[in-house]
Amino acid sequence: MLVLITYDVNTESNAGKTRLRKVAKQCVNHGQRVQNSVFECIMDYTQCRELQDILEKIIDKEKDSLRFYFLGNNYKSKIIHIGAKKSFDMEGPLII
Amino acid sequence: MLVLITYDVNTESNAGKTRLRKVAKQCVNHGQRVQNSVFECIMDYTQCRELQDILEKIIDKEKDSLRFYFLGNNYKSKIIHIGAKKSFDMEGPLII
Repeated sequence: MLVLITYDVNTESNAGKTRLRKVAKQCVNHGQRVQNSVFECIMDYTQCRELQDILEKIIDKEKDSLRFYFLGNNYKSKIIHIGAKKSFDMEGPLII
Repeated sequence: MLVLITYDVNTESNAGKTRLRKVAKQCVNHGQRVQNSVFECIMDYTQCRELQDILEKIIDKEKDSLRFYFLGNNYKSKIIHIGAKKSFDMEGPLII
């Protein structure tokens, strides 16, 4: 299924900048960055739960915001993209 | 239905900063800002199409990215939020 992860990390402090890097790094390991703080990840519920636990330990819940949107398996018709930074089909043929 | 709108606007130029303000202003008129560049909007397809046309005219398609995610009517179980900036239930009782 497709899980959309969006986040806002408060980067006013150096600690915040570190948290932002860590959150992005984890998300990059699990999916495709489609915008600065927006990732599309193909995962099952268990994988998502694991990533959620990891990210929860990284963020500062008083300052940072983390959102997961579950778009299911038939997600291609549920997304419209306009403009720069086109995303690629993570479940499409891998052309080398 | 719930439509999630996410965007990345290139603000390296003053024109970009203006585009960002305009995009945000339009989205605020149609829904709830849940993160800096993430909005949740309750709209039907016609309203969404209208907003999409407006935003398409604002952004620079070479530099900015605009994404729409359609989460349908039964969206409450499809969203997890962790941390700051709690969102409110746009279809819940209005308590004055």
